[in-house]
Amino acid sequence: MDLKPTKPLSGFIELLPAQQRCFDYCAARMQDVLRSAGFSMLDLPAIERAEVLTDKDNWDEIETQMFLFQKGDTKMGLRYDGTVGLSRYVAGHLNDLVFPFRASQFSKRYRGERAQRGRYREFYQMDLDIMGINSLSTNYDAEIISVINRALESVSEFIGPNEALIGSRPFWDALFDYLELSENQKREVFILIDKKEKMGDEDFAEGLSDALGNAKQENLIKLVFSDGYKQFLNKSDKLDAAIDELTRFMSLLNGMGVKNAKIDLSVTRGLAYYTGLVFEFKLINHPELGTAAGGGRYADLAGKFSKTKIIGVGAAIGFSRIFASMLENNQIDLTRFANPVDVAVLVMGDNNVAYATNVVNALRDAGVVAVSYLDTDKKFKNQIEYADKIGARFAAIVGDDEVAKNVIALKNMETGNQETCVLADAIKKVK
Amino acid sequence: MDLKPTKPLSGFIELLPAQQRCFDYCAARMQDVLRSAGFSMLDLPAIERAEVLTDKDNWDEIETQMFLFQKGDTKMGLRYDGTVGLSRYVAGHLNDLVFPFRASQFSKRYRGERAQRGRYREFYQMDLDIMGINSLSTNYDAEIISVINRALESVSEFIGPNEALIGSRPFWDALFDYLELSENQKREVFILIDKKEKMGDEDFAEGLSDALGNAKQENLIKLVFSDGYKQFLNKSDKLDAAIDELTRFMSLLNGMGVKNAKIDLSVTRGLAYYTGLVFEFKLINHPELGTAAGGGRYADLAGKFSKTKIIGVGAAIGFSRIFASMLENNQIDLTRFANPVDVAVLVMGDNNVAYATNVVNALRDAGVVAVSYLDTDKKFKNQIEYADKIGARFAAIVGDDEVAKNVIALKNMETGNQETCVLADAIKKVK
Repeated sequence: MDLKPTKPLSGFIELLPAQQRCFDYCAARMQDVLRSAGFSMLDLPAIERAEVLTDKDNWDEIETQMFLFQKGDTKMGLRYDGTVGLSRYVAGHLNDLVFPFRASQFSKRYRGERAQRGRYREFYQMDLDIMGINSLSTNYDAEIISVINRALESVSEFIGPNEALIGSRPFWDALFDYLELSENQKREVFILIDKKEKMGDEDFAEGLSDALGNAKQENLIKLVFSDGYKQFLNKSDKLDAAIDELTRFMSLLNGMGVKNAKIDLSVTRGLAYYTGLVFEFKLINHPELGTAAGGGRYADLAGKFSKTKIIGVGAAIGFSRIFASMLENNQIDLTRFANPVDVAVLVMGDNNVAYATNVVNALRDAGVVAVSYLDTDKKFKNQIEYADKIGARFAAIVGDDEVAKNVIALKNMETGNQETCVLADAIKKVK
Repeated sequence: MDLKPTKPLSGFIELLPAQQRCFDYCAARMQDVLRSAGFSMLDLPAIERAEVLTDKDNWDEIETQMFLFQKGDTKMGLRYDGTVGLSRYVAGHLNDLVFPFRASQFSKRYRGERAQRGRYREFYQMDLDIMGINSLSTNYDAEIISVINRALESVSEFIGPNEALIGSRPFWDALFDYLELSENQKREVFILIDKKEKMGDEDFAEGLSDALGNAKQENLIKLVFSDGYKQFLNKSDKLDAAIDELTRFMSLLNGMGVKNAKIDLSVTRGLAYYTGLVFEFKLINHPELGTAAGGGRYADLAGKFSKTKIIGVGAAIGFSRIFASMLENNQIDLTRFANPVDVAVLVMGDNNVAYATNVVNALRDAGVVAVSYLDTDKKFKNQIEYADKIGARFAAIVGDDEVAKNVIALKNMETGNQETCVLADAIKKVK
């Protein structure tokens, strides 16, 4: 019989134990930051009705982007982000939640498209969202940015420093109005801006020219990226309001202790959802990862599910994008995650298994990671080799003599020193 | 426009924040027990190739049981248990792992069949497995049972006491041989035993009679459940060996401190995988949940993936089965999970947001869960109402006066007492 393949499907992540411990450690630290900021951790279904996932009816088209299946008459699929499920959940629990409601989700999401370099088909994102009914101050936008910054800071020993780039959808709306662009032109130019970084300056200029064919309009849009937004003060009330919001926001961030934020109007976060300020985080030492986190404000989060107007500001941290990539590329030193076991308890003879188990249980109760080697017919040489291979700091040897005297032979695996002691002393020495 | 449904699909679990906090707390406690016992936490893909999930070729048949989809030429599906992925992973990483290898997975699994009462289509199981190459002492079977027992004990305040029921596949093999059953009869009787509890004694007797049509054989099998296995000593060497293994095993469990285990030969764990001792855990106060955990030994875990013989003993704890059921049925007192916020920081006026954020950050750094209310134009009455609704123990009030004097007005929400203090003192009072 042919053996089946042992590699996971392409685009799916599979870590070795030490890598996984690092991944889990970083997730736990970041979640501690979110929990201390009052975010409720939600765990929503990975499968949603197709009608919840998309408004599109064209099954063939959406099937190329998602994992979909049909059960009986019901079409359903795996979520591609955390926002669709959250909108449904919040709309369904308006009376169970207190608003502003702070929610976080750390969960797997799925993209059905063919895997490309650096793109996963199954990946973790860590979302955080603050939602209000009918109103929600932009102070919460600043709070979200501050919390993401603190979460990324909490693991900076692994990923280095970060910076936040702040964009504004209202600024572009105001500028497009001021330039008197048609709806079609607005859309085309907006797509160009969203892709500007990937396109390069030359292609961007060419695209603008194709879309507008008006040198004055083209130059003004290019000016946003060279001389900055301040050129656009006193042009229209709408532009002034957008610029005022942005400058006040930057000053608030600074006052809140977020010192690594700057304005970057090329940040637009695509066409979906967002209606206000938008932002992205980059890792300064890891430009190859692209956007580490991104988000913004949406004026009506759950309009498809509820007549109640839920205003939200939210973001997703690309957790797998950051950590799975760095782990797979050996960019994180795993030394401290390599050897989690404190004590290997080696057992000479089946008669001593019960005694040895009481030893490991006492160690575990004391918060010591203890593993017993229970193939008791193996020679001492093999057993001590096991203790060495798993990198245990100590070996606790249990044979007939030790059981008779109610003691343990405790060997320091680093120094090779061995001494006989009672259990309570062994626990003290190990801790 | 019609609103979309807000309920999750049937068979999918969705908890409210306090329920989720309890669920997560229990998972974390149990995972701490496993981690202290040296289990490596693995997080494998939820999607596997169809050929990994099943040996069956009949797509229509397996599609009724699983969530399957096709991408290009590749058929794939969502895992229904943790064992298939683990076998693949271990076979693919023989040189990266130290054996005996202890692995745990706490992950979502999926069953495609129509949801029935108490059956989920997406559910968490917590697996633990110990795997050896070519040999693995049955002492590890006892270790697995001991660790599950300790994991369930760690959350006994919620789920009450547990008991372990130990069965033996070799006992039945030996008895069937002794009774000289045909292969077909063995299979039929084995299925009957597996279903005995659900069938009831009368249907079981009838089933036996249909399968065997031999009063002597029928009575001997019934005798296992009434008078016990000891009747079968000195009948055949194979029976004696199976009974000897079982009695030694029970005595080992007892010596290891597992006082709540008993023999129950009706425990067989179905037809798949298992080749040695098998076991199930029940929650004594929650018979309605059925089997809380189950597992056993398999002689060749990864035969489909590798020529190396990997012997395993493993179990799955039905985490959602236990906790989602109990939470959905309000069988757990959620008082201590209801109000996670220590301090609500209330902010009077936009000018004071930066100051207030420095207060919340200092509180969070000190390990205090702190939430700021940032709709600063809301009246004090509305803000204090928010602090009350989220069950904050304290409200920290920040207005122009407090900022000018560099202090906080700290209100104890239970007593109503309010005092003005500097930040450091506020942190002390709150902790």
